[in-house]
Amino acid sequence: MPTRPVPQTENAEEGVREANRRFYQAFAALDIEQMDEVWLHEDWVACVHPGWDLLLGWEEVRESWARIFASTQRMKVEISSVWVRVEGEVAWVACTEHVTSTFERGFDQALVQATNIFVRRTIAGHASQWQMVAHHASPLPVAEAPTLQ
Amino acid sequence: MPTRPVPQTENAEEGVREANRRFYQAFAALDIEQMDEVWLHEDWVACVHPGWDLLLGWEEVRESWARIFASTQRMKVEISSVWVRVEGEVAWVACTEHVTSTFERGFDQALVQATNIFVRRTIAGHASQWQMVAHHASPLPVAEAPTLQ
Repeated sequence: MPTRPVPQTENAEEGVREANRRFYQAFAALDIEQMDEVWLHEDWVACVHPGWDLLLGWEEVRESWARIFASTQRMKVEISSVWVRVEGEVAWVACTEHVTSTFERGFDQALVQATNIFVRRTIAGHASQWQMVAHHASPLPVAEAPTLQ
Repeated sequence: MPTRPVPQTENAEEGVREANRRFYQAFAALDIEQMDEVWLHEDWVACVHPGWDLLLGWEEVRESWARIFASTQRMKVEISSVWVRVEGEVAWVACTEHVTSTFERGFDQALVQATNIFVRRTIAGHASQWQMVAHHASPLPVAEAPTLQ
């Protein structure tokens, strides 16, 4: 029985969602080797952590993740409102991150809005893969508990 | 005398820089018609103002600019550290915005890191044009005055 043909864009969008999930898995696992797999290793990849300046190039970006991971004991990251747009070999994702970080001296909860950009690259002998080339994350105000009128 | 051929990517990068400049001109002029020209009018364009949730679709995005412009008397925007990446028909810009907004009751100075995404579209009978499809702006800590040791 022939399989139902899947439209190209549906395929592409699922690939981007999967790449985005892998990024947050690496983030939550505090695993720099997983991060290595997620990102494209080029001198033009870009990253803005909440409240940080722009970091440019894989070396600088990787170093920032290594520092974040080294100073964090445990990380929980959930994402919601994931929205994807694919334009040819480039795609971007908007999503909300719910981050709980545990440090040596306490913990921090943050609500973060992220824009993640991916490009599709084919390495000889492998299936094409969506790889992260930019991450921009910025703080959202945490919703306040409802107050009595 | 023949003109020096300009490489395709150089052309593209200059086009993106020009589109980015037009965006900030519209922003500083508080001019919604200029904003109309800068953005692609699609239901998937996206915008994150500093500390705001994601806005999706041109209607919602345009409304946010109209509100910002209506509540602002004067706006000065300078940009620095402009960095551009072109991948085919998609490009993105990272830059730092130095924004001074004057309201009825005072003024506000902000340092903002922005990621702007553009796509190249050709309208029949016109030259192709880079149009904004995403803007993500987030607050940077303002550098403190140096303190005496």
